[in-house]
Amino acid sequence: MSSFEDADTEEMLTCLQMTVYHPGQQPNGIFQSIGFHKREKLPSREEVKFGRSSKVCNYTFQDRQVSRVQFSLQLFKKFGSSVLSFEIKNMSKKTSLIVDNRTLDFLHKVDLPDRCMIRFGDYQILMEKEDGVSLEFFETEFILSPRSLLQENDWPPQNPIPEYCHSVWFSPQSTSPMETDENEL
Amino acid sequence: MSSFEDADTEEMLTCLQMTVYHPGQQPNGIFQSIGFHKREKLPSREEVKFGRSSKVCNYTFQDRQVSRVQFSLQLFKKFGSSVLSFEIKNMSKKTSLIVDNRTLDFLHKVDLPDRCMIRFGDYQILMEKEDGVSLEFFETEFILSPRSLLQENDWPPQNPIPEYCHSVWFSPQSTSPMETDENEL
Repeated sequence: MSSFEDADTEEMLTCLQMTVYHPGQQPNGIFQSIGFHKREKLPSREEVKFGRSSKVCNYTFQDRQVSRVQFSLQLFKKFGSSVLSFEIKNMSKKTSLIVDNRTLDFLHKVDLPDRCMIRFGDYQILMEKEDGVSLEFFETEFILSPRSLLQENDWPPQNPIPEYCHSVWFSPQSTSPMETDENEL
Repeated sequence: MSSFEDADTEEMLTCLQMTVYHPGQQPNGIFQSIGFHKREKLPSREEVKFGRSSKVCNYTFQDRQVSRVQFSLQLFKKFGSSVLSFEIKNMSKKTSLIVDNRTLDFLHKVDLPDRCMIRFGDYQILMEKEDGVSLEFFETEFILSPRSLLQENDWPPQNPIPEYCHSVWFSPQSTSPMETDENEL
């Protein structure tokens, strides 16, 4: 009882929930190494790798069409924010990685929106972040979707995502629109 | 001779030259594990770590005031660019990392300007990137400075760095200045 009472207070962990779908999925198939519905605690200092090679990847896909390292996730903290954020980087020279509507080639990276769809080849991964307090650790959780996520979530969204869109505004005393990049990447 | 003739054409490598200085430096001191004036070839997919722990860091400082991992560098490719770029992330909970005039706390990251000054504690590292062609590999090179780099390079710069400054412009038919963030981070 005293060890329980003296233990450090547990901090809420940021959780990245990943709902995966592949049209060829079946029991003991491409997702056989993924533990579904189990939260796994990981140090936020470490890069998390996804791909075919179990030597270097945290999460592997049993599929020869997947690169040894397909993509990686990095934890970081935005300026002015107290919570963890994720950055995704395409590590494959052969396959593009699509984050919502944006195409990432080899070594391109973007900050991950709190809810977004990742696609490469026939793979679909819906990523949803639940904020926590701890900066030292975070959790991952995988869910298997029986159906394509593109239809279910009406993905990709039809409206441009604010992060990538241009805003057009009019100066009160001018007739010509003025275009600015609100968020240069 | 034929193996020479048949070998893959060598690609120019991006080189990150790091000129280091610490007021307490001496032979066989804090920089004893660093090989000066030797170019080292590294895979661009891998994170490069700097700190006290030789178990996890590529480059170590023999100094108890340095964190086990002090900071890390990530290679990536900017959208629309064909060359490698670097991102730096502060991995220390105890020490701030200063990139030019910008202070990074634990897990803060920024894209590294092509020439910039990194500081933490009494350490000064002038980082200078020389662009190459290869995306697979890059090189590092260390140089030891006998003098403080802050005086020698007139660092930190007195003028605000374009990346972090706000531009103020006037609409032709308006008298009030309009402020926009040109590069939101």
